[in-house]
Amino acid sequence: MRLNKGQLYIISAPSGTGKTTISRRLLKVLPNIRESVSYTTRSPRAGEIDTVDYIFVSVETFRDMLKNNAFIEYAEVHGNLYGTALATIQEVLSEGNDVLLDIDTQGARQIRNKHIKATSIFIIPPSIDALYQRLKKRNTESDEVIHRRVEKARDEVREGMLYDYIIVNDNLDQALRELSSIITANRVRGNCIDKDWVEKTFHI
Amino acid sequence: MRLNKGQLYIISAPSGTGKTTISRRLLKVLPNIRESVSYTTRSPRAGEIDTVDYIFVSVETFRDMLKNNAFIEYAEVHGNLYGTALATIQEVLSEGNDVLLDIDTQGARQIRNKHIKATSIFIIPPSIDALYQRLKKRNTESDEVIHRRVEKARDEVREGMLYDYIIVNDNLDQALRELSSIITANRVRGNCIDKDWVEKTFHI
Repeated sequence: MRLNKGQLYIISAPSGTGKTTISRRLLKVLPNIRESVSYTTRSPRAGEIDTVDYIFVSVETFRDMLKNNAFIEYAEVHGNLYGTALATIQEVLSEGNDVLLDIDTQGARQIRNKHIKATSIFIIPPSIDALYQRLKKRNTESDEVIHRRVEKARDEVREGMLYDYIIVNDNLDQALRELSSIITANRVRGNCIDKDWVEKTFHI
Repeated sequence: MRLNKGQLYIISAPSGTGKTTISRRLLKVLPNIRESVSYTTRSPRAGEIDTVDYIFVSVETFRDMLKNNAFIEYAEVHGNLYGTALATIQEVLSEGNDVLLDIDTQGARQIRNKHIKATSIFIIPPSIDALYQRLKKRNTESDEVIHRRVEKARDEVREGMLYDYIIVNDNLDQALRELSSIITANRVRGNCIDKDWVEKTFHI
């Protein structure tokens, strides 16, 4: 009775906001949603599986795909290229599943500029101090790196104000409920129902 | 961090679809949402409390309010007048609560024509037969009345296709989750966040 079409979701957040934790839990509790698998030119790390974690390709292949407008967004990070192929997204959507695209604000902007239909969700920390404490607790980075990340977070939050939905992660369960609600609500929008089914079922 | 403003929700469904059950459960599980109290010219029934179940007024008072455009929608049912006052809605919204307005498709159309900002939700039964069985099970009405109700349901479903959201009630828990998700998602829309709070918190 629902049109068998998935929807595209973009999720972004400053580093240390808890986006990965929330996304993983979402994929566990909500059916019919998949994470998008990116293309990358970097080498697989131990344990990484091709086509599951990333689609690993050569620089030449990546550049060819880029030339052919295969990517809806891409970025260079530490000398490696990362990109989301339109074909990957379309395949998941055509199966009737939603796609969750975990990208940064620059990738989201590329998709926005291409006028690709997507629902964008930005997660913000409850405060700068909360973000600082979270990054500090990870205990993996120097004070200088943490300081830079916090500065970057500010720019990202500014850009995040352009997103369709803004979730403040001061409580993981609540944030997860809000994220899950956005997707569940979108699935019951009036334009998602199969009007033919309604007409047949109710003889109207 | 959220702007302290409630939103208006219109909920409609053909008789026998389970709307009342779903709405009652929603009001129990979701905070910050209230049912709108209607004005009526009919006499209170045993146990009904003025200003809780209805605001009971004389025909003269109702007609005066009508003249002064006090109602966003009204209807005459079995010779009695029923109406939703704009002031009632505004009072609940200004307290930061959402309002749930349980009205029929004609009332919803009046609100739509007045360009009042509202999110409309229509609940449909999974089939004509399911609706028939539900009405039959109530065991309170003659076959003829049930037949008329089913005929009316068809017209309502046709009108329901104009609503923002359409929930198919073939499972009460799922329908409740969908209704609750619509409201929760609306609360985290980007335009609901207090930009001043964000600017102050993140020094941007």
